[in-house]
Amino acid sequence: MSNIRVAVVGYGNVGRGVIAALKNNPDMVLAGIVSRNPDRVKKSVTDVPVMQIADCDEWIRELRPDVAILCGGSKDDLPVQGPALCAKLCTVDSFDNHSRIPEYFRMMDEAASAGGNVAVISTGWDPGIFSMERVLANAFLPGSRAYGFYGLGEAGGLSMGHSDALRTIPGVKDARQYTHAVTESIEKVRNGSNPEFTAGDMHTRECFVVLEEGADKEKIAETIRTMPGYFAPYKTTVNFVSQEFLDEKCSGFPHDGLVVAAGVTGNGNPARVEYRCQWGSNPEATANVLVAHARAAVRMAAEGKKGAFTILDIPPSYFSPASREELLAKFM
Amino acid sequence: MSNIRVAVVGYGNVGRGVIAALKNNPDMVLAGIVSRNPDRVKKSVTDVPVMQIADCDEWIRELRPDVAILCGGSKDDLPVQGPALCAKLCTVDSFDNHSRIPEYFRMMDEAASAGGNVAVISTGWDPGIFSMERVLANAFLPGSRAYGFYGLGEAGGLSMGHSDALRTIPGVKDARQYTHAVTESIEKVRNGSNPEFTAGDMHTRECFVVLEEGADKEKIAETIRTMPGYFAPYKTTVNFVSQEFLDEKCSGFPHDGLVVAAGVTGNGNPARVEYRCQWGSNPEATANVLVAHARAAVRMAAEGKKGAFTILDIPPSYFSPASREELLAKFM
Repeated sequence: MSNIRVAVVGYGNVGRGVIAALKNNPDMVLAGIVSRNPDRVKKSVTDVPVMQIADCDEWIRELRPDVAILCGGSKDDLPVQGPALCAKLCTVDSFDNHSRIPEYFRMMDEAASAGGNVAVISTGWDPGIFSMERVLANAFLPGSRAYGFYGLGEAGGLSMGHSDALRTIPGVKDARQYTHAVTESIEKVRNGSNPEFTAGDMHTRECFVVLEEGADKEKIAETIRTMPGYFAPYKTTVNFVSQEFLDEKCSGFPHDGLVVAAGVTGNGNPARVEYRCQWGSNPEATANVLVAHARAAVRMAAEGKKGAFTILDIPPSYFSPASREELLAKFM
Repeated sequence: MSNIRVAVVGYGNVGRGVIAALKNNPDMVLAGIVSRNPDRVKKSVTDVPVMQIADCDEWIRELRPDVAILCGGSKDDLPVQGPALCAKLCTVDSFDNHSRIPEYFRMMDEAASAGGNVAVISTGWDPGIFSMERVLANAFLPGSRAYGFYGLGEAGGLSMGHSDALRTIPGVKDARQYTHAVTESIEKVRNGSNPEFTAGDMHTRECFVVLEEGADKEKIAETIRTMPGYFAPYKTTVNFVSQEFLDEKCSGFPHDGLVVAAGVTGNGNPARVEYRCQWGSNPEATANVLVAHARAAVRMAAEGKKGAFTILDIPPSYFSPASREELLAKFM
């Protein structure tokens, strides 16, 4: 299983995270980077080939990857790149538009099956690890519901999507959005009441906004608080700050989360399970999970499997570089 | 997948937990109970057949189980019952002698393969869920070590094995042992230092002991504190109490635990994952996990798989009664 050759498709935050993660996985090797703009990538990468994503047959022939990790965005990149690429080689991606996962799965399943490849979709920590923990909690505690909370730490979790939404508002120069979990709501779940929540019951949103010169503070704050979907359903705090503050205090991509489910076993005894993760870098965490799934994808392909798969379809041992003997002796 | 017929082998705490758990899983039905002493079981069970475990071919013919959940002990029952039964039908068990799992796996793999059956071994919460979380933590955070702590709550976790060990001491009439995690050691792991611990660094042991009339308190306390393996490596507190105290304050089988691993991603960003469970009843929690694995065992057998498997070999979706469509739409 040594030397799994990995092509990294896309050189954004997640792509760079994957490249860093591969160095910590001795059974894997970076075959090359594929980008829409290879010349720009070549300015910071000189030790591996960097090729044009559009020249698909060429980079596959040249890099000979066992698997491609697709690091593009879920909105525009993956719906196009995913089916095109998994028809030609094994792929792993972190498509994270939850409501469109069934549709994306069908597209990928069709293309990967036709190509005889394995496509592992929608993995990372959520969707990904959290999806798995939700399924296990529900299977091991029937009747319980699994809840997801984000931003439990003091700083909260940086939401890229909400930060982007803030930056689309005219008059906003730069912005970051931090999500905070509502502690009282976590306690309600822990107490086993399986409560009904609206989105606003579970999380609040904290915005740090740098204004363009002359922008209307009050109007922008109002625009933010009433933005449908993104902020309207939530208790939202808007802080206007300087660019210096934002650059210094709001750097990096910290995020964290919790899956929690509570119910009863047998004759009414309380039972609770929780999975908690804390990431200094959200994209690097996603990258680490993607890399372990690349190992699994290659193993499944070697067994003759084909089509689309999620973390729910993969035995945990497939993510590990350890042998069956080692797993039985040291991990059970 | 409806009406999976389950035979419960053994009517102890776990066996009774399985019978209760089956009622919460509408796709499964209790086919019958198998015991060394059916007459005793029949005193409390009248609604399903109760049969003699030794008459193996007879109860398999009579109960027509798709799978047997083996609820006997790991020391004497499972090493004999396991191979004998998985040669004849699909089985699930909670063999929990960690150091002997590789050997038990080989025995079960040989017998189940010869019989063309699926034997899922060593599942529950530890070994079981915790084994899986250890493997995933290690795969997703290479270089980190996953640590297991038990008894984090104020009351601690009741250890059956250590309670039994106390009761073997002459002069001890009855006893319970509660394990407590050392909070400072959990914090060391959380801080990412991947510390080296001895057993005594991670847990302390609290004993509640009822003496026989005339027993020598000091001598018994000394015998407990110096008992090799069980207590000698730990800071151990011995409380002598009345039988009334024990019956009132030390009833039930509460237990809880934590798997925690901390390391870094990419360029040195901190990363931490934790899985925490809290059970009002340890045997009922084990039972719930066994029942979900029975579902998985039947599915694997239907696919033509045979031999021994652990939780590490099973895709998470196999534990769930939900369809693939439902899982993609509601759990991802």
